[in-house]
Amino acid sequence: MIPVKDLMRFLEEDLPAGDITSEMLVRGIECRAVIIARNEGVVAGLEESKTILSLSGLHARLMVTDGTRVPEGARLIEIEGMAEGVLSVERTVLNLIGRMSGIATATRSMVEKIASIDSRCQIASTRKTCPGLRYLDKKAVMLGGGLPHRFSLSDMFLIKDNHLALVPLEEAIRRARRFGHFHIVEVEVSSAEEALRAAEAGADIVMLDNMNPIEVKRTLEQLEASELRKKVLIEVSGGVTEENLLDYASLDIDMISIGALTHSVKNFDVNLEVTGRI
Amino acid sequence: MIPVKDLMRFLEEDLPAGDITSEMLVRGIECRAVIIARNEGVVAGLEESKTILSLSGLHARLMVTDGTRVPEGARLIEIEGMAEGVLSVERTVLNLIGRMSGIATATRSMVEKIASIDSRCQIASTRKTCPGLRYLDKKAVMLGGGLPHRFSLSDMFLIKDNHLALVPLEEAIRRARRFGHFHIVEVEVSSAEEALRAAEAGADIVMLDNMNPIEVKRTLEQLEASELRKKVLIEVSGGVTEENLLDYASLDIDMISIGALTHSVKNFDVNLEVTGRI
Amino acid sequence: MIPVKDLMRFLEEDLPAGDITSEMLVRGIECRAVIIARNEGVVAGLEESKTILSLSGLHARLMVTDGTRVPEGARLIEIEGMAEGVLSVERTVLNLIGRMSGIATATRSMVEKIASIDSRCQIASTRKTCPGLRYLDKKAVMLGGGLPHRFSLSDMFLIKDNHLALVPLEEAIRRARRFGHFHIVEVEVSSAEEALRAAEAGADIVMLDNMNPIEVKRTLEQLEASELRKKVLIEVSGGVTEENLLDYASLDIDMISIGALTHSVKNFDVNLEVTGRI
Amino acid sequence: MIPVKDLMRFLEEDLPAGDITSEMLVRGIECRAVIIARNEGVVAGLEESKTILSLSGLHARLMVTDGTRVPEGARLIEIEGMAEGVLSVERTVLNLIGRMSGIATATRSMVEKIASIDSRCQIASTRKTCPGLRYLDKKAVMLGGGLPHRFSLSDMFLIKDNHLALVPLEEAIRRARRFGHFHIVEVEVSSAEEALRAAEAGADIVMLDNMNPIEVKRTLEQLEASELRKKVLIEVSGGVTEENLLDYASLDIDMISIGALTHSVKNFDVNLEVTGRI
Amino acid sequence: MIPVKDLMRFLEEDLPAGDITSEMLVRGIECRAVIIARNEGVVAGLEESKTILSLSGLHARLMVTDGTRVPEGARLIEIEGMAEGVLSVERTVLNLIGRMSGIATATRSMVEKIASIDSRCQIASTRKTCPGLRYLDKKAVMLGGGLPHRFSLSDMFLIKDNHLALVPLEEAIRRARRFGHFHIVEVEVSSAEEALRAAEAGADIVMLDNMNPIEVKRTLEQLEASELRKKVLIEVSGGVTEENLLDYASLDIDMISIGALTHSVKNFDVNLEVTGRI
Amino acid sequence: MIPVKDLMRFLEEDLPAGDITSEMLVRGIECRAVIIARNEGVVAGLEESKTILSLSGLHARLMVTDGTRVPEGARLIEIEGMAEGVLSVERTVLNLIGRMSGIATATRSMVEKIASIDSRCQIASTRKTCPGLRYLDKKAVMLGGGLPHRFSLSDMFLIKDNHLALVPLEEAIRRARRFGHFHIVEVEVSSAEEALRAAEAGADIVMLDNMNPIEVKRTLEQLEASELRKKVLIEVSGGVTEENLLDYASLDIDMISIGALTHSVKNFDVNLEVTGRI
Repeated sequence: MIPVKDLMRFLEEDLPAGDITSEMLVRGIECRAVIIARNEGVVAGLEESKTILSLSGLHARLMVTDGTRVPEGARLIEIEGMAEGVLSVERTVLNLIGRMSGIATATRSMVEKIASIDSRCQIASTRKTCPGLRYLDKKAVMLGGGLPHRFSLSDMFLIKDNHLALVPLEEAIRRARRFGHFHIVEVEVSSAEEALRAAEAGADIVMLDNMNPIEVKRTLEQLEASELRKKVLIEVSGGVTEENLLDYASLDIDMISIGALTHSVKNFDVNLEVTGRI
Repeated sequence: MIPVKDLMRFLEEDLPAGDITSEMLVRGIECRAVIIARNEGVVAGLEESKTILSLSGLHARLMVTDGTRVPEGARLIEIEGMAEGVLSVERTVLNLIGRMSGIATATRSMVEKIASIDSRCQIASTRKTCPGLRYLDKKAVMLGGGLPHRFSLSDMFLIKDNHLALVPLEEAIRRARRFGHFHIVEVEVSSAEEALRAAEAGADIVMLDNMNPIEVKRTLEQLEASELRKKVLIEVSGGVTEENLLDYASLDIDMISIGALTHSVKNFDVNLEVTGRI
Repeated sequence: MIPVKDLMRFLEEDLPAGDITSEMLVRGIECRAVIIARNEGVVAGLEESKTILSLSGLHARLMVTDGTRVPEGARLIEIEGMAEGVLSVERTVLNLIGRMSGIATATRSMVEKIASIDSRCQIASTRKTCPGLRYLDKKAVMLGGGLPHRFSLSDMFLIKDNHLALVPLEEAIRRARRFGHFHIVEVEVSSAEEALRAAEAGADIVMLDNMNPIEVKRTLEQLEASELRKKVLIEVSGGVTEENLLDYASLDIDMISIGALTHSVKNFDVNLEVTGRI
Repeated sequence: MIPVKDLMRFLEEDLPAGDITSEMLVRGIECRAVIIARNEGVVAGLEESKTILSLSGLHARLMVTDGTRVPEGARLIEIEGMAEGVLSVERTVLNLIGRMSGIATATRSMVEKIASIDSRCQIASTRKTCPGLRYLDKKAVMLGGGLPHRFSLSDMFLIKDNHLALVPLEEAIRRARRFGHFHIVEVEVSSAEEALRAAEAGADIVMLDNMNPIEVKRTLEQLEASELRKKVLIEVSGGVTEENLLDYASLDIDMISIGALTHSVKNFDVNLEVTGRI
Repeated sequence: MIPVKDLMRFLEEDLPAGDITSEMLVRGIECRAVIIARNEGVVAGLEESKTILSLSGLHARLMVTDGTRVPEGARLIEIEGMAEGVLSVERTVLNLIGRMSGIATATRSMVEKIASIDSRCQIASTRKTCPGLRYLDKKAVMLGGGLPHRFSLSDMFLIKDNHLALVPLEEAIRRARRFGHFHIVEVEVSSAEEALRAAEAGADIVMLDNMNPIEVKRTLEQLEASELRKKVLIEVSGGVTEENLLDYASLDIDMISIGALTHSVKNFDVNLEVTGRI
Repeated sequence: MIPVKDLMRFLEEDLPAGDITSEMLVRGIECRAVIIARNEGVVAGLEESKTILSLSGLHARLMVTDGTRVPEGARLIEIEGMAEGVLSVERTVLNLIGRMSGIATATRSMVEKIASIDSRCQIASTRKTCPGLRYLDKKAVMLGGGLPHRFSLSDMFLIKDNHLALVPLEEAIRRARRFGHFHIVEVEVSSAEEALRAAEAGADIVMLDNMNPIEVKRTLEQLEASELRKKVLIEVSGGVTEENLLDYASLDIDMISIGALTHSVKNFDVNLEVTGRI
């Protein structure tokens, strides 16, 4: 899905009363331009950029596919059209590719690290996305090889510590099930004991929150001992970094979710060069 | 300005069909909650959060003012209201505070570094903001002590390399002036020679793009020698990092603009705790 | 969740240039009014109506709770305020209550019928809702005691005949699982053989589409015989009417989804009476 | 008029984060599909469906015109394009055709019934439409051969019982006329005596509300006797069903308005079949 | 009706990134202010202004009612609140009052002129309003004592020369009547002969377009002679100015519509004065 | 920039439920039409009209360019397409061209008057535009040869009397400069003494508000005497009319801003003629 309305809003934010510089300087000139990667990494946001460029009456050709790892200097999009149009959307497009490729690159790095030890564990994102960019941030995670996890509060049940501060765990799961079985029920727990209770009570996924690898290991052993391990999927969340990633991934867990993939993005450097008049 | 419409959109993105977990689990319960800083740093986004909380029918009290440096553990906002409301806006509010405080904290760090050598040079942001968050990203920069620079392409003239690939520098400035003198005219240059031409031609600000400190110094000397230095303000942009910041700031320049302040944000860690029923 | 924006849009549709009758006739008069049920049934849409009335500056008091079964003649909402406001929102409010209560009443009737034979089977709605009313239609189903099923195409995987015309069933489930385990995977099948394949391949829910009770029964037996019955939930869909409902509900199935609950709604009759000036 | 913005909103409601099933399963496949009537009846919503399909980049060919009576099994629209697009709009399109054709079919049935006795009386709809669907519901009525009546509260004056509870009838008409003569003035009455007063006072249309055929007949006779019948048009409303329709239509009245045409719609069954890859 | 959404849009247009002057200069100061008429005339837009001021958190008190004739120097609205709020909405509010009062004043002048000769003829506006301001422009006309005429193309039938270039007059009226009798049918004609044909064919209103008073008089006489005058209302449109107004108004016509009331507005001068801190 | 969203809103305002006249009368007819100037003057709004016509599926060819002075009778736009489309957008397009050309024509008249005395002084508009039309009103001014001045409160600093009622002039300028030097700082003054203080304190532009030519002259002399004249640009505003324009323009000032250009527009007369069927 290309969220066209959002893309139009991004443009409008930069153009409340037009691009005064380009309108006064380059009106009527047609040109060629190219968008070039200034880093090595996994690109994302190219399809969305193509849509933005087309909405502005420009002809755009993608030179690589979203999700591809490219070397520094790679030509990503070739553009032809009115210079006024090209220059007025330049920053919007670059900001989008920069953020989405940054997310995809970081995700891919995590995914490949895990693959290096043949772990079956998967990397997932969280809802710690940039306000207004939930869908595009998650799409970038997927292009990097990660899982989107839930998109919104309407997607699935995730019973967190703040819910459990108000309702007992077993009762919470019971209430969630009244909604039917069309949505997954996940419970966030902070101890092995809670994990067992959640599995026992019928959670689909148990999220071990802010446990270190040793605590995770012990919890898995207790689940195994109680014959509950196979009844649930295990997600680890909180405090996972590139440094300790493999300590977790080498355990028998199903997913690791990492907020930093989307809340602390390192921009992927990319620029646009006008290469000549037509 | 509180961009209320944007805040509402942020909420909607997380609630296409409601917060199914909270609606099934905690309906009808009233509670108290508190938002707590999990880092040391400069907070931002509290006013916006208060608006979001109010829009959801919750009572919120700010414990500190936006722009304040707080220690880890600081109580930022105290909340009272229906648990369903609190939990359904929790993530939106935390994402906003996390990003804005991250920006404010990084900006403040730069600003204080410069202050330490008594430089009059100021830190400015760029348009490399998160799509859809231009205003809030820039507001966070200001709360950190930085300058917003232009908000959009309608604000001022910034004649960049891509414009100059199509129109000669002097002609470009002349065309910009046809718009009147109500908007600043800035020219991005990549050499001392271009800087002199821009100053000569009447630019208000000359941006030295991607020059190292030695090149900047030489350019300043040549402007001085040509008696053009006083006619313009000098902005340095591109490649400035925390490491080399003081090398630039110790020169006779007016502003340093830094894209990373908003394009590569390190999230400020903050969480919400339900502290009890009412 | 009260979808405030939608409610405002409903009002706007009826008021492109104001309520010319009420503005010319009753400006400045304050009045009391009451909304009264003209049928026996389960009411819904009262909370939304209260919001609409408040948005128009009126004071509204709900006399019963959404989801309550009321007798004909029951007073649902008491209203006070400017007559111009009351009369300009009357129709919008009545249309909403009429539709939502119609859905809730029909659902409750199905739910109670099933309850009468002590079946554990549940009634669910489909996506055959009125365009633009997905959320409110499903909310009405829930108030009637039914399950909402998925709210949108982003909620869960539902692999239908048209997908299977293009991708083999097993491959389809495999592809869905690449999205992670945060979303349920349901497969619509039209034969016992397909049902077994779906269960074998790891579907969470198997939907038996357009099968008569005998076919459903045979399919259940084959699943049982293959020790697959416990691995999946069974949903029956298509061709279920009030007449044959119990033939299905007496079988060992988990849910019955019924499009008619929302696509062929019988309006619940309700009206508003101005009871006097204040 | 095709209300494009509404159609886009209908799509968005079903796609908050995309059609996850089709995106994971059938990406990149091109296919043919056809929309087929599963009932006999009068079709409507085909033009709107074509617009929706085009907005999604699909090629659509209407096989029949809106307003046509078709047999069960009739091919309504042939579609070609990306399978992901086809399947993600399928339900939205079918829901729209289902509702609009249901309305058109019911209206046509009423219209033909009246025609069978050579009555000049016309069938009209009311404002009892689905919230958000006013225009499309009324368009469907017109395609069925009925009259739209007023579209909104801004269209014409309709002085109802609730207005008359606050302002005397003659004064009400006088106030309406202050708005000029560009809008029709209709008065809803519940007795012959009121009907005479309304006609006398200059109403353009008198609506006999909730009167049985005998009461209507008497009212007409009294109007005739007072030489007022020719000065007004007579609309009958309330309690008209398929059963008693001809009892009313055989009288000397001008229009019969029926809320059930739009508030209690029986869905017209229609489906979409993918017929193969391209 | 107060078109709140439009009012909010007017504010947004002036505040893409906030009121930078007031935010930097007067933050935190509370003040009193007053809006004062700088002309003599009929004021309008005060209710809308009060809504705008309230939306910005300000306390506003109307000192006169919309539609009142005020002397130069009259205090229209007294305001209290944060200076930043007052100054950021000042221009929006003044522009609105200025335009609407300009329209109301010009309309009142025409209306009073006609009243001076005891003509029963009424002044009406046209659809020649400012794009986006249709409703408010017409509301101002009404406050001035004029008739709004149709608000939009959905309100009534107005068969114009361009329609008649494509369809014969009698056939045009016949087609319009197929829509029922809930909407007035007006025909624009340019000769006495056409006026007779329109009246004969059943038009409700005949608009004499661009005829001078003598031609109007002759047309009226011919209608009278053919016993058609009483069957229709007569509207005169085109070329009516303050100078020749009474030449028309002294004839037996029903309305005169004047585009200039809304297409060539003379602004009513009004300003806002901060009168002190609180 | 073509503000497409605004143009669509203008259309929607005239079509809440379609153009009932054209839909009933001319459905299916294709025609040719032409838009013709009925005045002599400078045209504007043609590009926007072309966009509107295209959005409605019509083929439009501009016969002259925006900003051109045309004689009465000039053909501005030739149109081909469905008659229903042409007639439903006619009024919206004509209203837009009428207003924008009216503004452009009045501006051009002022600009040429000044040119006649070889003054270097420029004509500028103000923010006294029609609510919702800020951008298009200013675009029309530019097409007439005037300067747009600031587009919004976010563009530049304009310190007005109401600010100065709350903050001393020098402090006000100091506070504005904290925002950086990316935005012009203008100060509105009402005396020579204030003008000197503003220039001294570093204002970029000093606006002499409501001074007569003699007062302006004296102020200029005092600035000259204090060697401050060259440090600032001088704008004159308030009370400038076509009569006294040259009295101001012959002085050594830089800009004259005139609210009447946009707040009291004389409509440029233009109409659309259907010239035949195709």
